[in-house]
Amino acid sequence: MSKNFLYTEITNGFVSQITSGVLKPGDKLPSVRKLCLEHQISMNTAKRVFLELESMSLIESKPQSGYFVSQLLSVKLPLPEVSRPSLIANNNEPDELISKVYENMGKKNLTLFSIAIPSGELLPHAKLKKEIIHATRELEYGGAEYEELQGNLKLRRMIAQRSLSWGGNFSENDLVTTNGGMNALSFCLMALGKPGDTIAIESPCYPGILQLATGFGLKVLELPTHPAHGIEIESLKKAIPKIDICLLIPNFNTPLGSCMSDENKKEVVKLLAENNIPLIEDDVYGDIYFGTHRPKCCKSFDTEGNVLYCSSISKTLAPGYRVGWIAPGKYKDKILKLKLLHSTSSISIVNEAVANFLKTGKYEKHLQELRKTLQANYQNYVQTIAQHFPEGTKTSRPQGGLSLWVEFDKKIQTRKLYDLAIKQSISIAPGRMFSLQDQFENCMRMCIGLPWSEETQQKLIEVGKMAKMIERES
Amino acid sequence: MSKNFLYTEITNGFVSQITSGVLKPGDKLPSVRKLCLEHQISMNTAKRVFLELESMSLIESKPQSGYFVSQLLSVKLPLPEVSRPSLIANNNEPDELISKVYENMGKKNLTLFSIAIPSGELLPHAKLKKEIIHATRELEYGGAEYEELQGNLKLRRMIAQRSLSWGGNFSENDLVTTNGGMNALSFCLMALGKPGDTIAIESPCYPGILQLATGFGLKVLELPTHPAHGIEIESLKKAIPKIDICLLIPNFNTPLGSCMSDENKKEVVKLLAENNIPLIEDDVYGDIYFGTHRPKCCKSFDTEGNVLYCSSISKTLAPGYRVGWIAPGKYKDKILKLKLLHSTSSISIVNEAVANFLKTGKYEKHLQELRKTLQANYQNYVQTIAQHFPEGTKTSRPQGGLSLWVEFDKKIQTRKLYDLAIKQSISIAPGRMFSLQDQFENCMRMCIGLPWSEETQQKLIEVGKMAKMIERES
Repeated sequence: MSKNFLYTEITNGFVSQITSGVLKPGDKLPSVRKLCLEHQISMNTAKRVFLELESMSLIESKPQSGYFVSQLLSVKLPLPEVSRPSLIANNNEPDELISKVYENMGKKNLTLFSIAIPSGELLPHAKLKKEIIHATRELEYGGAEYEELQGNLKLRRMIAQRSLSWGGNFSENDLVTTNGGMNALSFCLMALGKPGDTIAIESPCYPGILQLATGFGLKVLELPTHPAHGIEIESLKKAIPKIDICLLIPNFNTPLGSCMSDENKKEVVKLLAENNIPLIEDDVYGDIYFGTHRPKCCKSFDTEGNVLYCSSISKTLAPGYRVGWIAPGKYKDKILKLKLLHSTSSISIVNEAVANFLKTGKYEKHLQELRKTLQANYQNYVQTIAQHFPEGTKTSRPQGGLSLWVEFDKKIQTRKLYDLAIKQSISIAPGRMFSLQDQFENCMRMCIGLPWSEETQQKLIEVGKMAKMIERES
Repeated sequence: MSKNFLYTEITNGFVSQITSGVLKPGDKLPSVRKLCLEHQISMNTAKRVFLELESMSLIESKPQSGYFVSQLLSVKLPLPEVSRPSLIANNNEPDELISKVYENMGKKNLTLFSIAIPSGELLPHAKLKKEIIHATRELEYGGAEYEELQGNLKLRRMIAQRSLSWGGNFSENDLVTTNGGMNALSFCLMALGKPGDTIAIESPCYPGILQLATGFGLKVLELPTHPAHGIEIESLKKAIPKIDICLLIPNFNTPLGSCMSDENKKEVVKLLAENNIPLIEDDVYGDIYFGTHRPKCCKSFDTEGNVLYCSSISKTLAPGYRVGWIAPGKYKDKILKLKLLHSTSSISIVNEAVANFLKTGKYEKHLQELRKTLQANYQNYVQTIAQHFPEGTKTSRPQGGLSLWVEFDKKIQTRKLYDLAIKQSISIAPGRMFSLQDQFENCMRMCIGLPWSEETQQKLIEVGKMAKMIERES
């Protein structure tokens, strides 16, 4: 077995034992020497394993004593409640609140806890620049001409190859590129919905999806959603007669960070196909899992072409490139026609650059780093929240993605918290943004994609202080 | 006066006299020596004036005799009829025909008479590549982050500055960037229309607009349109009670190449504003005029913010960059919200590169060249058509843009011509594509944006031969 394979094998073994609780916070790990003997590896390799685990905040070293499972992992806050939205479609759009939050985002020197993209510091800009320059030099006419309608062939091939890891099994011909993930969702809704139709979604749900749906004149039915496991199948079953389309973010959903089990994904796909209800699956967070394996998708279980699978690199690599894609199943012709009409062509230069970034293996390497950083961030956030937020604060327990959902006591209104925080140049996302119903007023979404530093921690502590102040004054 | 200013002054004087008919085909121009004496310029400058006029195909030199106004200019074919569509909204979409034409466009080694973009050979790719590389190096994070929602500030400033030349008088704050011109039109229709509304357009009309409108569930009312002067005001007046939106390409419209007079533009703007009907103005061809001055726009006469002005660089610089913009007047908030939802952000790199290309004056220089080439092409096309197409063939007389409209005798069906031509690797655009009604079966649009060469001429002659064959067999 190759050295690198062994190294990955051993590291993943520890990750799995620690995250599953076989090894518990405070447990001592074997010494470097012992690890060498056990696995017949070099001292250097053994040290690399521990450094890797340490960078993921899974273990900590104590001088003269060795490595221990991190105490951070013992910090767990209670889970928020399963959401209980009204099962009657509602359209009480929190328009003003959303506008206020988005408008303020442009301000300088803001600590942006309110978005769900990774901070610029976590992205491989220097390498991407090189790819852009390379693509510009190599493309015919420097990429100034229209691409073929379906999109850059090399990129589609790479996406198809990567899909094998989660059972997507795409061919290049199954894919259509788009100008980012929202553009992909927009085309899917245009292709499937007509005004008056009802769409079922998770609750809480990403505000862009809520606004997109209401913008197309759709009625929105919010489904009860577990903060860790996603939508409740029983509720979906009951809703079936009322709905025309379903849209889910099954993997590390924003704002909850929930992830559906394989079993539930399979069940949802079957249920919707039987009832001829198309499923739009948004998988923009699927690649940034904290464990050792990428979760499957609903598309993995789709035998009928009934799932329109959407993804992008906006949450992992370069939000500003607007590179996304759809595997539209049996709706491919409709999607192609919409792409021709509404955007004519994708933009060659950025698509070619991303294709090469994937092809040369740079993307996988970058993802490995990003996952470690986000996992460590998550643990640091939870520890800080446990120490500095009001008693009784609950959080979701994302196993991937960029979002952490925080639920306060009912007395603490996050609209008020927003107004206080923005004065201190801190932007949070109040829970009410994530629903068309009157719920989540005591919740907020936090982005864990900021680089962890004393400053970030300090800002988080400030949010906690302000929340306590609101609690006292209520 | 500077040498360059004098040079431009003298050249424009000749252009104006020739195009207005003061100097007629065959008229002799003054000698180089005489021009020097008359204007107190050097021999070199005088020679440059004649070379410039020759490159525009306005004059030709005869050995030992000097320069003469080109005989090409004496070739004028009769104008097609004013279109007479039914004034009842119709929806007989030529879907299959459009699909066939678009699908075949991907084939290799095709002579593309069927599109309305300039051929790659006419665009400044090397210079654009440099701008892309420069932008990638200079932008923060290499342009991988989201831009501000309204779009690249430098680009908006440059567009605003350029708008002064035609009375747009924009400020940077009046503009919102989009992913190309179709994306701009798509946002405008989304902002203004709801299913069942009626939109008035020119007839014939660009197929993308027809499909976009029907895709949004709009009823389409086609207005009688003069091949040289655009829509008939009287018909628009009669249609007013029936319509909710109006969409026009007033300058060098595709497919006709027609251009509305200032007077008519002013009248249309007034009429629509009085009746509270928004006007979407597509001005993608306005910069490629053949005369000495850029035509005004409807937006030039808009005092109410009722005109949504759309344009792009897709027809003049780089189709594949997808850089477009809207000056949405009083609909700005709606357009910004749609942009946020459907595309999140424009793509920094291409927008920054185009901004710099404009800022450094390279765009104006490029446009000067492109205009000359297109004007010369137009005259070469018309001469070849006059010599080789069936007797009785009529053509429009575009004073700018990329389209020439050809009308055959009723016996010659351009659907048949298409099927014959595509077998010879020549793609034409049959007239029926440009309407939702049964009209224009004997017409076609020709792109004059191909580089003129013996090969291009030969292909054009072949189209003529095939048309004659159809005529004989009918």
